[in-house]
Amino acid sequence: MATKYVYFFGEGKADGRAELKNLLGGKGANIAEMTNLGIPVPPGFTITTEVCTYYYEKNCSYPAELKAQVDEAMARLEQIMGRRFGDKETPLLVSVRSGAASSMPGMMDTVLNLGLNDETVEAVARQTGDERFAYDCYRRFVAMYGDVVLGLKPESKDDVDPFDAILEEMRKHRGVEFDNQLPASDLKDLVERYKLLIRGRKGVVFPQDPHEQLWGAISAVFGSWNNPRAVAYRELNNIPADMGTAVNVQTMVFGNMGNDCGTGVAFTRNPATGENVFYGEYLINAQGEDVVAGTRTPQPINQIQKTDDTVVSLEESMPEIYEQLDKIRLTLDRHYRDMQDIEFTIERGKLWMLQTRAGKRTGFASFKIAVDMVRQGILTKEEALMRVQPEQLNQLLRPTFDPKAKEDAEKNRTFLAKGLNAGPGAATGRAVFNAPDAEEWAKRGDRVILVRIETSPEDIRGMHASQGILTARGGMTSHAALVGRQMGKVCVVGCNALEIDYPKRQMLVGDRVIREGDWLSLDGTTGEVFMGQIPTRPSEILRVLIEKSLPPDQSEVYQDYVSLLSWADEFRRLGVWTNADQPNQAEEALAFGAEGIGLTRTEHMFFEGNRINAVREMILSDKREGREKALAKLLPMQREDFKGLFRVMQQRPVTIRTLDPPLHEFLPQDEKDIKKLAEEMGVSYERVASKIESLHELNPMLGHRGCRLGIVFPEITAMQARAILEAACEVKKEGLSVHPEVMIPLVGHVGELKNQKQVVDTIAKEVMKDYGVTVEYRVGTMIEVPRGALTADRIAEVAEFFSFGTNDLTQTVYGISRDDAGKFLFDYIDAKIWEHDPFERLDQLGVGSLMEIAVQKGRGARPDLKIGICGEHGGEPTSVEFCHRLGLDYVSCSPYRVPVARLAAAQAAIREKKSR
Amino acid sequence: MATKYVYFFGEGKADGRAELKNLLGGKGANIAEMTNLGIPVPPGFTITTEVCTYYYEKNCSYPAELKAQVDEAMARLEQIMGRRFGDKETPLLVSVRSGAASSMPGMMDTVLNLGLNDETVEAVARQTGDERFAYDCYRRFVAMYGDVVLGLKPESKDDVDPFDAILEEMRKHRGVEFDNQLPASDLKDLVERYKLLIRGRKGVVFPQDPHEQLWGAISAVFGSWNNPRAVAYRELNNIPADMGTAVNVQTMVFGNMGNDCGTGVAFTRNPATGENVFYGEYLINAQGEDVVAGTRTPQPINQIQKTDDTVVSLEESMPEIYEQLDKIRLTLDRHYRDMQDIEFTIERGKLWMLQTRAGKRTGFASFKIAVDMVRQGILTKEEALMRVQPEQLNQLLRPTFDPKAKEDAEKNRTFLAKGLNAGPGAATGRAVFNAPDAEEWAKRGDRVILVRIETSPEDIRGMHASQGILTARGGMTSHAALVGRQMGKVCVVGCNALEIDYPKRQMLVGDRVIREGDWLSLDGTTGEVFMGQIPTRPSEILRVLIEKSLPPDQSEVYQDYVSLLSWADEFRRLGVWTNADQPNQAEEALAFGAEGIGLTRTEHMFFEGNRINAVREMILSDKREGREKALAKLLPMQREDFKGLFRVMQQRPVTIRTLDPPLHEFLPQDEKDIKKLAEEMGVSYERVASKIESLHELNPMLGHRGCRLGIVFPEITAMQARAILEAACEVKKEGLSVHPEVMIPLVGHVGELKNQKQVVDTIAKEVMKDYGVTVEYRVGTMIEVPRGALTADRIAEVAEFFSFGTNDLTQTVYGISRDDAGKFLFDYIDAKIWEHDPFERLDQLGVGSLMEIAVQKGRGARPDLKIGICGEHGGEPTSVEFCHRLGLDYVSCSPYRVPVARLAAAQAAIREKKSR
Repeated sequence: MATKYVYFFGEGKADGRAELKNLLGGKGANIAEMTNLGIPVPPGFTITTEVCTYYYEKNCSYPAELKAQVDEAMARLEQIMGRRFGDKETPLLVSVRSGAASSMPGMMDTVLNLGLNDETVEAVARQTGDERFAYDCYRRFVAMYGDVVLGLKPESKDDVDPFDAILEEMRKHRGVEFDNQLPASDLKDLVERYKLLIRGRKGVVFPQDPHEQLWGAISAVFGSWNNPRAVAYRELNNIPADMGTAVNVQTMVFGNMGNDCGTGVAFTRNPATGENVFYGEYLINAQGEDVVAGTRTPQPINQIQKTDDTVVSLEESMPEIYEQLDKIRLTLDRHYRDMQDIEFTIERGKLWMLQTRAGKRTGFASFKIAVDMVRQGILTKEEALMRVQPEQLNQLLRPTFDPKAKEDAEKNRTFLAKGLNAGPGAATGRAVFNAPDAEEWAKRGDRVILVRIETSPEDIRGMHASQGILTARGGMTSHAALVGRQMGKVCVVGCNALEIDYPKRQMLVGDRVIREGDWLSLDGTTGEVFMGQIPTRPSEILRVLIEKSLPPDQSEVYQDYVSLLSWADEFRRLGVWTNADQPNQAEEALAFGAEGIGLTRTEHMFFEGNRINAVREMILSDKREGREKALAKLLPMQREDFKGLFRVMQQRPVTIRTLDPPLHEFLPQDEKDIKKLAEEMGVSYERVASKIESLHELNPMLGHRGCRLGIVFPEITAMQARAILEAACEVKKEGLSVHPEVMIPLVGHVGELKNQKQVVDTIAKEVMKDYGVTVEYRVGTMIEVPRGALTADRIAEVAEFFSFGTNDLTQTVYGISRDDAGKFLFDYIDAKIWEHDPFERLDQLGVGSLMEIAVQKGRGARPDLKIGICGEHGGEPTSVEFCHRLGLDYVSCSPYRVPVARLAAAQAAIREKKSR
Repeated sequence: MATKYVYFFGEGKADGRAELKNLLGGKGANIAEMTNLGIPVPPGFTITTEVCTYYYEKNCSYPAELKAQVDEAMARLEQIMGRRFGDKETPLLVSVRSGAASSMPGMMDTVLNLGLNDETVEAVARQTGDERFAYDCYRRFVAMYGDVVLGLKPESKDDVDPFDAILEEMRKHRGVEFDNQLPASDLKDLVERYKLLIRGRKGVVFPQDPHEQLWGAISAVFGSWNNPRAVAYRELNNIPADMGTAVNVQTMVFGNMGNDCGTGVAFTRNPATGENVFYGEYLINAQGEDVVAGTRTPQPINQIQKTDDTVVSLEESMPEIYEQLDKIRLTLDRHYRDMQDIEFTIERGKLWMLQTRAGKRTGFASFKIAVDMVRQGILTKEEALMRVQPEQLNQLLRPTFDPKAKEDAEKNRTFLAKGLNAGPGAATGRAVFNAPDAEEWAKRGDRVILVRIETSPEDIRGMHASQGILTARGGMTSHAALVGRQMGKVCVVGCNALEIDYPKRQMLVGDRVIREGDWLSLDGTTGEVFMGQIPTRPSEILRVLIEKSLPPDQSEVYQDYVSLLSWADEFRRLGVWTNADQPNQAEEALAFGAEGIGLTRTEHMFFEGNRINAVREMILSDKREGREKALAKLLPMQREDFKGLFRVMQQRPVTIRTLDPPLHEFLPQDEKDIKKLAEEMGVSYERVASKIESLHELNPMLGHRGCRLGIVFPEITAMQARAILEAACEVKKEGLSVHPEVMIPLVGHVGELKNQKQVVDTIAKEVMKDYGVTVEYRVGTMIEVPRGALTADRIAEVAEFFSFGTNDLTQTVYGISRDDAGKFLFDYIDAKIWEHDPFERLDQLGVGSLMEIAVQKGRGARPDLKIGICGEHGGEPTSVEFCHRLGLDYVSCSPYRVPVARLAAAQAAIREKKSR
């Protein structure tokens, strides 16, 4: 049997169906599907993508069987329509459109009104009784054909389209503004001038034979698959080049033949909010392009959407058509089990559907539709879970600017600059330029935005006190971004346009000055920065979940949210833990569904209250005795920290990392602060300055930090181990269950872990004996330098768990400091060397393959080794999926990313199930 | 058959032999071997190491068969000697000594004169006619037995030996200085006092039964295997704890029975120079311990060694004994096929050999003996190659201090401090504290030592002008050490005791001040620093090979050196290339046998002459045009550099790395220099300062460097590619063969290499067309970040060769900056977390396993992929061996390490052959 290259559709029956998307393209497959559903679609046929592949493989020729199949389909079309192609009385007009399996909007070419020539145009004029309409169609066809098929393009980028130039001249000549003000005679004239232009510029005569026109158009559409724009688009979107496009040849229908005609676009549900209401707009007596062009204002399709009485909805103007359309809407929505984006045309009182496809939507809508469709019995839970992008969940949590107010702000030119959208949400507050001020202002009741060149651990309390954080430097994983996200703060980073002047407590943005106390508004979802206050709306879900100011049963979105996440929990295998340093963070994470703490950064606790003084005293002591004295002051404070965490987390594991950052991060850097410190400590300025100097490192990221601190200063690890174990014993005595896990950072050699584990075990024994309490604790390690992964078998002989620190692991695997990557990151993305910032999305090929080695070697040595991840990637969906495939036990992420990780984990499990 | 636990030796026949070292220990096996060779050895027997193992496994008990076997051996001994153990007329005395397979000098215990008691001592007195002698033996035995067997030790570390205390008291009482001035009666008295001490302190009676004495001694020797000193020694030297020691029971012979007696130690060749002459010393009428104790000055064994006429050689005093000894010396030297360290005793005119073992020697001797033994037909070339440690070859190349002069310096207290011995050799010069001064002083003829806190690329010309380099900071792979070694400079780094004051141009070491211009002497072989000038001796080999001031046929050591290395070349499979930036370095490397250049660091060339100005102009330009203008000035200079290298290397490959270091390394750091630069460039001080500030990086090691520079500034790569290809074309036109290989640094993603290769290929095409010359060139990459190794399959699709940059790879695999490692390196070595500094010796387990992945993946994608190593490890023997096993094509190292690598590569090949 000969290969079938042409799929017909018409009279309620189509050769194709939706599943044949790869063969028929998205448009062709959906037209076939609609036809089979009994929905009125202008009849026609689709030439398959296999022809496209053949066309490119065989030097732009066609399969031998194609012509006969096209001829047969045309004959059938003529028979159905009672019209003939090129007939001088009742001519058939068709459109020729491309349609690939993956949508490539606007990338490829279309020819409309094909079949018109000097004779058929007269027949159309006669039949419609509208010469102007007929010649308008003809002149549009000649221009489109000249452009698409004959390649008559502007001669340079700066030129206007040559056909438009002639039209423009005509309009000027007539002194009219719009095309539709030109009389039929002018349009006739235009056709002739277009033909002359084609002959003059391309040396060919515009073909009068409709079959020649048809094959010319088919070839042009196939040819457009490889036009530079299309190639670039495919590369950008990872669409394979050998997929090919289909060609759809379809009877023309016209929405512009009078007031019983029209055209419109609609969504089967609200694409912004997800509400289950019909949503769309239409124009009477118009063609599709008129809706888009915006020369006339489209009208709403139904009463619900009417905002004022001057407009007329389709429901009012054509109630029967609207009723028919609404039925089709329900049919398609349920049939496709997804919100559809549809196009329709009404030709002399008859409704025709031209297109249906899944509609684009906001994160909010995506979530709402998925949940509703489960409730409606349209989708299974599994399917609904796959419909929501995990990142979209975060949009539900953020306070947002009132859209109207933001629009006004833009109008009032209060927009200042744009940075990276590191912490979604909206915040307004008064600008302050250092962390102590932020705290002070906040204490007296001011809402502040902390503005810094970049932030450091010293700024943490100030960041906490602020509504939002704005930095001039740093990327998506800078200190500000990382800590901001963990705190759930609105955060815009790397906003290069800011020229911050600390001494003057002000910043310049272009010629505008923002002084301390001036109001700023940050849109962390878009990265925009505005002067002044823009009112915000709080997130409903947070009001229920965190603030507890709204009862759960009063929030529909909260109910939906909880439902979706509980479905996710039914399917996921990965545990979802959180990174939290404070009891209140842990509480928030629990509210979001965290099942444990995967990372407590003890150093963040060092900046609480007056502790930093004891920390500095410890660092400045040259002898062990001095350090131990200072550490003894920290012990009770750290113990209280841990007790707080244990009480919140109870039976859940709490993973506490021993001190990690280089010591110089705890010391002041500028002269004034050093002087102050020296006075406080009662030592000379020179002494403090020289100690700071001696702690200076060329590459602190690769310097004296992590377990290297604990090895040189075992008394630090000892103090922290004591604080953890004493806290555990005390909380256990309160009758609660405790599960501390002590995590040693930056281990590259099993000897490092052995050394530190011994310190912990010795102290643990002592403490448990003193308290007469037994606490089950584990000692494990971060895997965050390549050697840790490469020698994981040895390390697993000592480690009771692994946790991948993929921030540092990415830095060392790439040999790139994320703090310094800004100098070339953009060049790398521009040059397409990297597809993504590896600090944002886990690099599976490089970092991932090292993780795989670590998992294999680690579990080889200790089969029940618990393995997790606590880098920022733990809350990023593609990375979570990778962790699932790798067989990790859990991911740990900042509290606000817990829901994202829960959904991503469920999706990973569902995807795995499907692929089996 | 019962297990044989006791191996007898005596009457020219032994149960054991040298090969049974693991069973009999080194001493026992060699005694057996000597016995079988017909060499006079006091008869006895060895209890095997299996008994030791049994002893520890079975709770300090012995195999049932042991007693019968020992009794049988004792009986046989009595029969041979015609004496009986404990006999009141002709008593047999024995020594009981430990002897493990691996030598553990001084770690375990020995008991001499065993068999003496209150009765046998009288028999000995009668038989020798020397009561004093008999009681001296007895009192020594009682003390030794009390100490070793009964555990009568000093009560605290600070106490003297309690037996010595009694002896001391006796000497004081008698008013004599030496033991041998005490009469027999005093010695008798001492025996009684010793016995009382034992009874008082240990509550036991000194045993009179020789068999009880014997078993007590045997148990004590086995027990000493696990004494704390021995355990610590084994841990330090990686000797397995379950090897056990043997026990040697041997008839006593005495060198202290009169003037026809004596004892001595000797080497079969000169252990310092390797010369094939008998070398040793002896004492008339003395025991072994007297030679060591140094109370009497030993005499040379032969005439050759006589330095003055007051001494009497053994050759003179006992010509027959000497002749016999010399024969034994030749027998052993040839039989063992190695220089032997021997011990002998002459008892009443009869020569007894007590011990033979391989002798310790200097590097020089080791080399000389190996070569000589091949010439003598004793060793094969393969064996000789295995006898020389590759590192020892370097000792042959270095100028050295005249040992006498250095000794004087030590006496005169001119020793200042000790640092790390980074560049072996000896150098004297006047202290200067910056590089420009070094150049200036050198220009006017002064020899200088450049003293810096640490060096940077800017110091290169100053380093070159110096005799030696001394730094206060930095490790074995710091800039100073690395460049110093490459230049062949004497270099001491990380000398923490120096307090350098640049502004005052002086340094403090303790309370001593060294000012600019003061003389310093550096011993780079030991790391010692002296004030003043110590005269040096130039290396003969260098005078032949590099200076060409000595004809080859006039230097025996040169002939030997060339022979050994030519033998190495016969066996090795690995190529040995060199890292060289200058034609003269390349020439030196060729003289040392380099077969190619594996790494030319183009940035080193940027500091030549006035080039740095153009480099700075390039860096300071904000626009591409400005950079290109500056680069155009550098082009002809770089081209000349490469022409020089190509002319020297000709048909050999020359691998040139594109620009690698971060740009800020080329800019001045202090205000004065910045001002000067700003003036020179005609721009404002602020402009230059702010540019320098903007180039500042938190972690420059992980920052904007390597190919990241070429990707952001492709014009730099383009200039360098042009310089390389133009140079190649011009040299090829001169009729020479050229093989440039362009190496892209720091590649972690194949996209980086693709990007840079395209720049190189485009320029190459252009240049070859312009010159009308075709040059075969390759483009490859460094593998120096983990991601490069992990994705080597992808990278190999583009790379034509790989070169492991193990310096950076070690930094990234460990997550450790070598510049900052000083803060914890020593703690790591002390805590035995690391066995070696991984920057010195390639970490095979971690870094190595990553290299293995890269080799497998790289060759998987491109089977003929050429792979080398150009990190500092390329000249380190264990690392070279690893590279051989990994199947690399070549190692590349600094010129002076080429011979080391040649030998190490040969050894790797020989070892591999053996293990098959």
